[in-house]
Order: sequence, then structure tokens, then C-alpha cells
Amino acid sequence: MRIIVTKENLVSALSKAVRASSARPTMPILSNILFEASADKLTLTATDSEITIRTWIPALVEEEGATTLPAKKMQQIVAALPNTDVTIFSDENDISTITCKKSTFKVHGIVASNYPEIKEPEYELSFSMKVLDIIRSFTKVVYARSTDDSRKQLNGVVMSIRGGIMTVAATDGRRLAIVEKNIEDENAKDGDYILPSRASTELSSCLDGTDNVVISLNRADVSFQSANTMLKTKLVEGPYPNFRQVIPENCGNTVSIPRGEFTEALKRVSLIVNDSGESVKLTFSPNNLLIYASSIETGESSESMEIAYEGEEVSVSFNPVYFTDPLKVLEADTINIEFGKQYTPIKLTGDEGFLYMLMPMKG
Amino acid sequence: MRIIVTKENLVSALSKAVRASSARPTMPILSNILFEASADKLTLTATDSEITIRTWIPALVEEEGATTLPAKKMQQIVAALPNTDVTIFSDENDISTITCKKSTFKVHGIVASNYPEIKEPEYELSFSMKVLDIIRSFTKVVYARSTDDSRKQLNGVVMSIRGGIMTVAATDGRRLAIVEKNIEDENAKDGDYILPSRASTELSSCLDGTDNVVISLNRADVSFQSANTMLKTKLVEGPYPNFRQVIPENCGNTVSIPRGEFTEALKRVSLIVNDSGESVKLTFSPNNLLIYASSIETGESSESMEIAYEGEEVSVSFNPVYFTDPLKVLEADTINIEFGKQYTPIKLTGDEGFLYMLMPMKG
Repeated sequence: MRIIVTKENLVSALSKAVRASSARPTMPILSNILFEASADKLTLTATDSEITIRTWIPALVEEEGATTLPAKKMQQIVAALPNTDVTIFSDENDISTITCKKSTFKVHGIVASNYPEIKEPEYELSFSMKVLDIIRSFTKVVYARSTDDSRKQLNGVVMSIRGGIMTVAATDGRRLAIVEKNIEDENAKDGDYILPSRASTELSSCLDGTDNVVISLNRADVSFQSANTMLKTKLVEGPYPNFRQVIPENCGNTVSIPRGEFTEALKRVSLIVNDSGESVKLTFSPNNLLIYASSIETGESSESMEIAYEGEEVSVSFNPVYFTDPLKVLEADTINIEFGKQYTPIKLTGDEGFLYMLMPMKG
Repeated sequence: MRIIVTKENLVSALSKAVRASSARPTMPILSNILFEASADKLTLTATDSEITIRTWIPALVEEEGATTLPAKKMQQIVAALPNTDVTIFSDENDISTITCKKSTFKVHGIVASNYPEIKEPEYELSFSMKVLDIIRSFTKVVYARSTDDSRKQLNGVVMSIRGGIMTVAATDGRRLAIVEKNIEDENAKDGDYILPSRASTELSSCLDGTDNVVISLNRADVSFQSANTMLKTKLVEGPYPNFRQVIPENCGNTVSIPRGEFTEALKRVSLIVNDSGESVKLTFSPNNLLIYASSIETGESSESMEIAYEGEEVSVSFNPVYFTDPLKVLEADTINIEFGKQYTPIKLTGDEGFLYMLMPMKG
């Protein structure tokens, strides 16, 4: 294999592929990336057996061929190269010579034929969506998934399709984040598809372009094909909890608050209870929202904001991280907080199709 | 105590004082900072029993007094406040109410009378230097000290005064970094004064102003008094190794190299051996410097630079970190490398008064 690519393209492709490579692989070759050169493309593939990422960049291919190279080391080396053309030549011993201006690296690889075969599953349905809709949906829900390994379904993110609407959702049992998007493609059929944890977190960072992504599904696999990059993963066996039934139609009261100002105030007040597991309390009273926290060890803190509210005084306590997580990823300037009584769930909305529900803490 | 200070001043003072507070203190109060308000000043003091930092900022003192407050927590809180006036009121139970715009924090403190008394030692001599000379000298040598606890003297930085010249030096036995500065103050007397590790690393970050620093010394203590901030530390008992005798007058050959270009090339070539403990080799030959590294596991790398050199070919190998450490902190555009034979020490110079010496690796 002998190719010439730009440093910029190679950096971008490596940053995607490396997300599927393993730091502690079951087989040593899984910490490598498969490089394949043919026609006018260099294709990079990495897999950890569950998730596979494949991406290609334009290349001047002087000699077709393939090899595998260590993912992390290649990422470090290429990042340090001057911003110009990079030549990669792999010899018959899978030693690759990487040259760029006055720099030369000879990197030990492993023969490509040892790389596990990436099987292409038979998909049952396939439809397309705007790639930005998928990226934004995952970003706005993924933090709400569970990190407790006892329920595999909750470690990931579900894509739940019903009547032409895809709901991307994550929950850890105490909070729920969802984003709903219309699918304009009629090929989408009803079903729940649970992505495992790793694919859920990596997906947003490796899809590219502003075009469409083609989503292909069967009961056990999903692939996302964007312009130059494909992410494929095994699915987690369901069922996923029926999250739709826990969303109340109406909580009782709604207030609108500027997102930035509220986020800053909440972060400040929370400083007093950070790492203590103690709660922050919101008290809604006529024209005033009081944010209050207290810690036995450290002290207490409070801050008020003017709000348009005329109802009875209601106080709701919660883990502050559970409130700042969605505030950080939303885009709307104004968010709506819906609340009922002290121990009933809070609803947070703002961005189109987004809904976040949070169970208050007791005491 | 009731005071008003600006957030900006308080952030700056806390960032200095926190450097002497203890994360894992022998007494709980040592993770606090002593706040003392009198006349028109707020003075912050922190100590871990070895090192003490005291700094003051202008304050509108409405009620004089003192308290102690948790260092890290105060730093977090004040950093999050809006950029305006901050009021601190401490009540008779040492609960301090910090208010800034709409934010209120009540932070639990410990009574100031429990804070260990900071004794002022009797100093035997006292002289002044430009504060920037001290900051730059420590920055340019401190990385070369030893991290091996078996020889306490080498864990710190020595200030060695001989005939009106102060040499600030650090060595770990395989490398030596020194900076020499003239002391214009005639009160400076000959002697070696070894600062312990913590004071050596914190000093540059907490001295302030562009003015002079007054250095006061006795056999066991040193204090550095800059405009608003004083750092005081116990000294390590000597003797410090006689580093002057290991510096060769002349290594044999000298080449001048652009610092930036050489640093980048060396970093790139070193990537192949990072974390492996393997060496990088410099080969000086007529008009060419070859930087080369090889790792049994990863592969090899090389890069050449044109140099003005006409002598015999000489190769010298070394731990790459030992070479990039000084290159990162120097200021000169051009550095000089002096070398002799394969296993004789390399000398690096460039900045005024700076000298770095490095023992090559074998094999």
C-alpha cells in the first residue's frame, strides 16, 4: 500500500475510527485500525466486536493494499505532523513508513488478513433522517442513561418508532430525557431499538456532514451511514421500559425562565452541596423563584430570580446534577419548568421535541 | 468581621493562599484560610506548617475581625460569583455570609483563635532582587529537581550565593539546571539555601508585581516578600551537592539551533518511544543534525535539521523528556547545544544566565 493523503483529512478520520478501537482489547489487533487503500480512497475501520466504525477520506493511491496500525499511536503521530501531505507506504512485513516533510516514522503494524471480518448483517428496514436531527437527539438525552450495570437496557439509549415519529430516549429510573422527531421517510416501521452505552455516546461525534443519515435496522443490529462514516453496533435485547406512560399530560403549573441565567444561578447555589449527595430546593412563590441548598458540613446558599407565577408556594428538592445536565445541552434561550406538588415529577421543556422529567428527592 | 472587596481581588488572593493550604491536613483547620480584616485591608494566610503564604488585598472594612474559611470551597464559590463587589460578614459563631448581587452563601468556618500562630523567625540577612528575576529563575530550573524522596536536598531548589551572584539550581543526579543572576544588593552573603519541593514549585505562582522581592534568610528559614504577598518556608538542611564542579568549562563542539523548530521536531520523533523509557539519539554530522528514536514495540522515527557544524560525526542518546523539559521554559529564539563525545555530558544554553547539563544514556 502506498498512498498520499492530507494531514487534516487523516486527523479527522483517525479521530472517528479510534472511538471504536479498544484500549484493553480481547485480541491485540483490536487496538489497531484497519487501513485499506483502493481506487481513490483510504478507508479506516475499527471495531471492538460490539461497535464498528468505518470512515473514508480521499487519497492518491499509488499502490492499493491494506494493513493495520496502532490506533492511539497513529493518532498521536499524525496530530504532531506539519499541516501538509502525508505519505504512507506499507511494506510486505506490515511496517508502514509515514513521511511528512522532514519527518519519517516507521510504525509496526499487523497483517490486515488477521483483522476480524466485519460482517454486514441483513437489515429488515432502512430509512433516512437529517444527520443533525440524530446528532442533536442523542446529545440531548444520552447523559440521562443509567450507569448501573444491573439493567443493560437502561445503560443505552432507545430509538422508539411509533407512527412515523422517532423518540430517542434515555432514563436511569429517576429521570427521563426524550427527543421526538418526525421521520419523513415512509420506510420507518414501529419498534424499539436499544443502542448499547458505547454506541450511544460515540454516535454524535462520528457522524459527518450536514446531509442525511441512513439508518438500517433488524432485531439485533443497527447501522448509521452518513456521508463518509458508518457506525454499526449490536443492539441490546429489550424490552425497554414503557417511558411514555410515566409522562404526565400536565403537571399543574408552568413557569418560563431564561436558561443561561437560571443555569448560572443553579450552578452557584449547588457549589455548597457538591459531592455531598445533598439536594437543592426550588421554591416557587408569587413572582419569585428561590434556589436554596444546604449542607450539614459546609453551610448554605441561596439566590432568587423574578418569575411570572401567581400560584401557591411550592417547594421541590432534587439532585442538582440532575437539573444542570439537560440545561447544559439545550439550545433554547427560554426553558419551561412544569411542576405540581412537592413530591410529584418536574417537567422541563424548551427545545423542539425535547422533554425531561425528574423525580424530586424526599426530605 | 464585615468587609467589602472586589471579586477580582478576592479570586487572585485566594488563588495564592490556597497553594499553602492542605488537602489532607494534620489538623482540620489547616485546610482553611485565615481571613483577617483591619484598617483598609483583608489579609489571607494559609500554612501547612512547612510553607506559609500571606497575601492582602484592599478592602472596605466595616467591622474589623478575623475568621477561617475552607480554602477550596471558598475558591470555588468566589470564582462562580458575578464580577462585582463581594460582602463577607462573619458572625460570632464563625458562620460567614458571603453576598454578591442576588447570591448568598453562609459558609461554616472555624474560630480564628484556633489557627496556628505564624511565628516570624529572626532573619540573619535580607536583600532584594527584581521579582521577575526570581520568578524566571525558579521556572527555568524547578523541573530538574529529583522526585526520589531518599535525598531530601535534591527534592528542592537551592539558592546558592557566591560573591554577589545568586545561582538558583536543581538536579536529580542525571541532569542539572541553573540560572545565575547578579544581586545588586550588597547585603547578600555567601551561603547555600535549599527550598523544599513545595515552596520550589509554588514560589513562581504566588509572588506578585513587577517590583522587587525582599529575600530574608537564616540557617533554617527563608521568606520572600513581594508587593502584596509573602511566601515563607522552612529550609532543607544541607549540604547541597557541589554542582559547580561538575560543569565542564568547554564540551568541545557547539551548534546553534532555532528553539521552536528543534522542540517540535524532537517532540514528534519522541512520540515513537513515549512512556517506554527508550532513548532518542542526536547525531551531529557536517551540516546535518539527525534526530532518531526507535522502540522495539512501536517502530522508529527520524527527522533532520540543517546545522552549521563541520566536525566529526558524534551521536548522543538521552531520555527525550530530559531534553524537552528545558526547551519548554526557555525564552531565547536560538539555543546552543554543546557536546563532546558519545558519553560525555551535553550542555544547553540560550537564555541569559541559564545552563542545563544532561548525562547521555548508554547503549
